[in-house]
Amino acid sequence: MPYDQTKHESSLQATLAQIVGLLDKQELVSSVSLKQSPQKQDLVQTIVAKQQLVELQKRLDQLHPADLAFVLEGLPLDRRERVWGLVRADRRGAVLLELSDAVRDHLLGEMKENEIIGAAEHLDSDEIAYLLPSLPKDTVMRLLSALDREDRTQVQTALTFPPGTVGSLMGFDMVTVREEVDVEVVLRYLRKLGGLPDRADQLFIVDRAGTLKGVLPTKALLIHSPDVPVAEVMNREPIVFHTDDPAREAVLAFERYDLISAPVVNLHQQLVGIITIDAVMDFINEAAQREQLKKVGLKEEEDIFAPLWKSAKNRWAWLATNLVTAFIASRIIGVFEGTIEKLVAVAALMPIVASIAGNTGNQTVALVIRGLALDQINPSKMHRLLFKEIGISFMNGAVWGSIVGLFAFVFYAQLPLALVMAGAVMLNLLIASLVGVFIPLTLHKLGRDPVLGSSVMLTAVTDSMGFFIFLGLATVLLLQ
Amino acid sequence: MPYDQTKHESSLQATLAQIVGLLDKQELVSSVSLKQSPQKQDLVQTIVAKQQLVELQKRLDQLHPADLAFVLEGLPLDRRERVWGLVRADRRGAVLLELSDAVRDHLLGEMKENEIIGAAEHLDSDEIAYLLPSLPKDTVMRLLSALDREDRTQVQTALTFPPGTVGSLMGFDMVTVREEVDVEVVLRYLRKLGGLPDRADQLFIVDRAGTLKGVLPTKALLIHSPDVPVAEVMNREPIVFHTDDPAREAVLAFERYDLISAPVVNLHQQLVGIITIDAVMDFINEAAQREQLKKVGLKEEEDIFAPLWKSAKNRWAWLATNLVTAFIASRIIGVFEGTIEKLVAVAALMPIVASIAGNTGNQTVALVIRGLALDQINPSKMHRLLFKEIGISFMNGAVWGSIVGLFAFVFYAQLPLALVMAGAVMLNLLIASLVGVFIPLTLHKLGRDPVLGSSVMLTAVTDSMGFFIFLGLATVLLLQ
Repeated sequence: MPYDQTKHESSLQATLAQIVGLLDKQELVSSVSLKQSPQKQDLVQTIVAKQQLVELQKRLDQLHPADLAFVLEGLPLDRRERVWGLVRADRRGAVLLELSDAVRDHLLGEMKENEIIGAAEHLDSDEIAYLLPSLPKDTVMRLLSALDREDRTQVQTALTFPPGTVGSLMGFDMVTVREEVDVEVVLRYLRKLGGLPDRADQLFIVDRAGTLKGVLPTKALLIHSPDVPVAEVMNREPIVFHTDDPAREAVLAFERYDLISAPVVNLHQQLVGIITIDAVMDFINEAAQREQLKKVGLKEEEDIFAPLWKSAKNRWAWLATNLVTAFIASRIIGVFEGTIEKLVAVAALMPIVASIAGNTGNQTVALVIRGLALDQINPSKMHRLLFKEIGISFMNGAVWGSIVGLFAFVFYAQLPLALVMAGAVMLNLLIASLVGVFIPLTLHKLGRDPVLGSSVMLTAVTDSMGFFIFLGLATVLLLQ
Repeated sequence: MPYDQTKHESSLQATLAQIVGLLDKQELVSSVSLKQSPQKQDLVQTIVAKQQLVELQKRLDQLHPADLAFVLEGLPLDRRERVWGLVRADRRGAVLLELSDAVRDHLLGEMKENEIIGAAEHLDSDEIAYLLPSLPKDTVMRLLSALDREDRTQVQTALTFPPGTVGSLMGFDMVTVREEVDVEVVLRYLRKLGGLPDRADQLFIVDRAGTLKGVLPTKALLIHSPDVPVAEVMNREPIVFHTDDPAREAVLAFERYDLISAPVVNLHQQLVGIITIDAVMDFINEAAQREQLKKVGLKEEEDIFAPLWKSAKNRWAWLATNLVTAFIASRIIGVFEGTIEKLVAVAALMPIVASIAGNTGNQTVALVIRGLALDQINPSKMHRLLFKEIGISFMNGAVWGSIVGLFAFVFYAQLPLALVMAGAVMLNLLIASLVGVFIPLTLHKLGRDPVLGSSVMLTAVTDSMGFFIFLGLATVLLLQ
């Protein structure tokens, strides 16, 4: 019976509930037996508890590591640790890889050094390299010395590439063949190996010096007759990455050309690793998640069961920044307190000027960031983009300035006030579009991530300038 | 010589520049010849222009359809149309699939009916189904009748599944075999076919009735000896999707289990299609892009070269909504104009109360939306989440309320005002955390996308409540 994904999702939730139930019963049993403790009943309950544990462990053993990670993330700290204790040692490494950073750090913190080393022994070298930054230094040392020489070299190679490069995403699990042989020889070799790496949709052709000569899609092995030479069916112009290429470039290429895997070479064109679609997808996901959190100033993902103060601190950097910009805006209003005292209507109207410009500005920022991410914005299109945004802000200024002015006139019946309001909205929209184009572009040119600060900076400008322009115009034009 | 991705990116930019240059020269030539038009020189220049056209066409023919799409998106409307005219008819379909919606609609609008039908003829049926919604009704009719019966049935099948289901993402290009045969027979069959569908990492095993019995990884064909029966090496419990499963579920499964392809079945467990990693990645990308734009209220992606008013209109729905909430906030301030006249300091301080709560609230919203997207939030964790956010808002309220109060005291030297300010910040942070949890959860329960409206609604609440709480407290406590 094929495996049904829909049923599977709800069955995972059921497993989670079942585990919590089993753990609850166990807690009940042990607390009961502590209180009453007549020898015989105690024994019976111990047996029941043991049976339940065995049942639970069997259930856990059947779960895919990714599903086990999902279950662990859904458990409160104490239960999470107890369930983790029941996960088989040879599966712990695979589960650790699938956990979110916050939960992984929690469980690694609870593990003894030899448990960590035991878990890592069942992993590939690129996977070990992925875990190393989360481990204490001593453990890293002992773990490295526990590996055989080839694995250790690979782990060290993987660690030399900074995050965000192709080198940091590549794996070492690949099959290489020579171009002199024919398909039959390759097939015999593969049968002898008895397995192929996951996601291996191609074998790599290298010469004696390890230089990459091309790739051989596994598909070609299936559709060509065994006596055809590899040299005839190999692809001599595959898409190749260098270890120090930015990972973002690999993402673009995998998306654009629908790749499953690609060879990675060093500066001498020697094959050093393989980059596969699952590493690329993980990178995309992590980048997207980081972005979403960074946009609202969260430093890292939060474990829903982590202590309060840890989560509170995670949110502070952004609050502090924002408070500074709010204080500045507040002082700008403070300068015009005389105007507000004489014409109190401006106090009620001023947030509208700031808010509408903040919104259009953030639309511009979103479009520019998107254009940068998709490589659509380059110097030749800069002036085009800028003219367009200025044009739109003029149109929006005319339309929305009039509406806002009308609103002011309806409520305060003062034509000059309404005109000042409309003018201030138009001016601030213009500023918003200019700043909305320049802030992300400048951050990008400085080599910083425009997602990180653009929106805060833009809102700081549109707020302060909104208050300044509107209150300034009101002071000069309305108070004579 | 393998293909170098880094060089490739810059070479694409160079191609773009070269095309623009060629087109410019041509425009120059034709304008010169129009003005001077001495017969002989005219002829020479026509020849030069023709040679350049041939050169340009050769360059275009060598580009991957995805790269051609990239180039077309980077060209202003008139040049884009001229280059499109040079793209070979048999490649146009593939390029159309790769274009962004805005640019595709532009080019389809410029094409004649028979050109569109000619382009579609080179596509698979699921790809044709993807293009149909962008075409005029008459063209759809003529296109469908131009297809052979099998293709037409497949296109119609694909169209019956609403967007966002697995059915709408699936393709029909797959190889099926019977479980009674052995590996040798399958290999002979594949050699006869002379090719395998892209991303086919497995063949599907069906019985006479078309019921899916399992899958046969192509890898198994390589590592097992030819005389092994398929029944012995097939996987009888593959991950399977139903046509009406939500696409989001397929995304989660492809990410969690690192799939390359999976079979799609109907309610009778009959194989009807295949879903592949590239369709899933396209879906993820489109969803992510839609989300980013929707977050700031943009209805659709904008073509940077589209007319101004089209782009301006794209941004209006959000501006209108936002203006309504700004008007409400403005009227709340209006109610307290008496207070502001007597104590003008509150006008300068009130935006701080609104702004800091808006920021913490948006952090909560981002975490809740993320939890919903990753399936981490369920009823059992709801109270946990809520308690946590309330706890954090108390901590943040104490810390940032004090800082804000201190700021008010430094600038206005009035202790009661400072205390009111601190109290208002604490209260509004509490409201922000409650609303930040409930708004996305409620939208999610109502079956709406929480990304779309959460942030606007939250800011509306934190602004209005911020002004109301602060000005209300000031009126009651400070004006006696």
